[in-house]
Amino acid sequence: MKVTRVAELIDGKQLAKQINTKTKTEVAALKEIGITPKLVVVIVGGDAASEIYVRSKHRKAEQIGIISEIKALPETTTQAELLAVIEALNQDDQVHGILVQSPLPSQIDELAITRAIAPTKDVDGFHPENVGKLYTNAQLDFPVSCTPKGIMTMLEAYHVPVAGKHAVIVGRSNIVGRPMAALLLNASATVTVVHSKTADMMAYTRDADILVVATGIAHLIKAADVKPGATVIDVGMDRDENGKLTGDVDFDGVKEVAGLITPVPGGVGPMTIATLMQQTVELAKWSETRGTK
Amino acid sequence: MKVTRVAELIDGKQLAKQINTKTKTEVAALKEIGITPKLVVVIVGGDAASEIYVRSKHRKAEQIGIISEIKALPETTTQAELLAVIEALNQDDQVHGILVQSPLPSQIDELAITRAIAPTKDVDGFHPENVGKLYTNAQLDFPVSCTPKGIMTMLEAYHVPVAGKHAVIVGRSNIVGRPMAALLLNASATVTVVHSKTADMMAYTRDADILVVATGIAHLIKAADVKPGATVIDVGMDRDENGKLTGDVDFDGVKEVAGLITPVPGGVGPMTIATLMQQTVELAKWSETRGTK
Repeated sequence: MKVTRVAELIDGKQLAKQINTKTKTEVAALKEIGITPKLVVVIVGGDAASEIYVRSKHRKAEQIGIISEIKALPETTTQAELLAVIEALNQDDQVHGILVQSPLPSQIDELAITRAIAPTKDVDGFHPENVGKLYTNAQLDFPVSCTPKGIMTMLEAYHVPVAGKHAVIVGRSNIVGRPMAALLLNASATVTVVHSKTADMMAYTRDADILVVATGIAHLIKAADVKPGATVIDVGMDRDENGKLTGDVDFDGVKEVAGLITPVPGGVGPMTIATLMQQTVELAKWSETRGTK
Repeated sequence: MKVTRVAELIDGKQLAKQINTKTKTEVAALKEIGITPKLVVVIVGGDAASEIYVRSKHRKAEQIGIISEIKALPETTTQAELLAVIEALNQDDQVHGILVQSPLPSQIDELAITRAIAPTKDVDGFHPENVGKLYTNAQLDFPVSCTPKGIMTMLEAYHVPVAGKHAVIVGRSNIVGRPMAALLLNASATVTVVHSKTADMMAYTRDADILVVATGIAHLIKAADVKPGATVIDVGMDRDENGKLTGDVDFDGVKEVAGLITPVPGGVGPMTIATLMQQTVELAKWSETRGTK
């Protein structure tokens, strides 16, 4: 008789809801002492996917009581014009978080934009100074890339042991893979980063106690690539052959092997937005502590 | 009949000599266009080991033609006094590299000092902004922690393949382990970081094509912990039971298994100082490029 196990679902949607409720309470408390957290999202040009993301961030912020402003600039915006917009936002004491939506038109140097945002308002956590603090495990208040930060919140909420465990991260992007590695290393996991150049990638994934997959390749990870009982976090937002939203993990197969697994949609996605809201509020609080409200 | 292999030695002393010769030529060329690279080493109090390090850096700089200044401050120096010294060096156009020797007396906040040095003069590569550039693989000119950077130079000089290979780093310090992981990941290795909290550390070391050990534990790594043919880099500077300088790797045993191995002394140590000199000259060149000589 074959005994099948079925992984417990990590319900990102439900957890995000709880976090948003908590953030809403914090916003109300801040308003009582005269601070209203404000997030400005800058979007350049008319990328359809970006507009959907930006609108959903805007809606969530409004629900929570965060002032959300969308600055939509034309496709033809120059580097100098965008830098001037950012500088004005840096100077504006009412603004706590600034986010410039990717992708940007080709005339704009994305790295220079990342570096232009004041580190204290860098709600995406992409500024080199904030990245440096993350990688040196600085015991300070600073923003961190929202997707990996949200994943740490999930691991904690589901009581997944991290210290001493083998965490394998598939993908080495600056937005997910690399900051995820830093957060897990700071939490004392043994951390391996595998990527497109890795020889025999699945030899590593099969050894993972915690497997985080962020490649953009639909169903890259199959049941045979996962250690029985592992925690599997799927950052993918891919389309399958029928155009349906799916992840980097073959959910139906892997759920028979894993101990815990995130679905797509309803896993990492809602947690990223909830973390963005949480971090906007944190930036507002920290600005107050620094006395630069 | 037992066939024993003996690893090829990575001669850090010899390689450092070659690099220093090249750096000396570059200094001479810079002097012809009116730039004399200058390094200032700040030392606070009278730690004996620090004094030895500082003096050997000073001597090497003088041999190469770099102006080297040692600012020796009393043990009782306050945080504010040290910050004022650094600020004056930041403002001094003749100074290209600033290094504050560790350890610092307890009244000084080391992290604040690291952050006070101008990123463009941060010859140790410890400023969060430079760390952030390293971890995001920024295609820019910026300084990097000298020990791991020197190790990359060794791997290159000995034609060790890195891309797609499994690099295992033992230790997660901000000076060696973490920046080493970033450099190897940027060079497309599959990277694993193991440390004191890792369960079954040697299961990872035995799988390493490139093994970098930086723990401060004498002879932690034995022959049985190393994959036949692996490249083994020993960052340790330990004392054995007889007070003799030795490494984190049991050299006599491991050299029978490894393909390439660094000795202690004469491996990583001289490369760190050669890299510091090289980087001082790079900072001088970059400052010129930025037009802020």
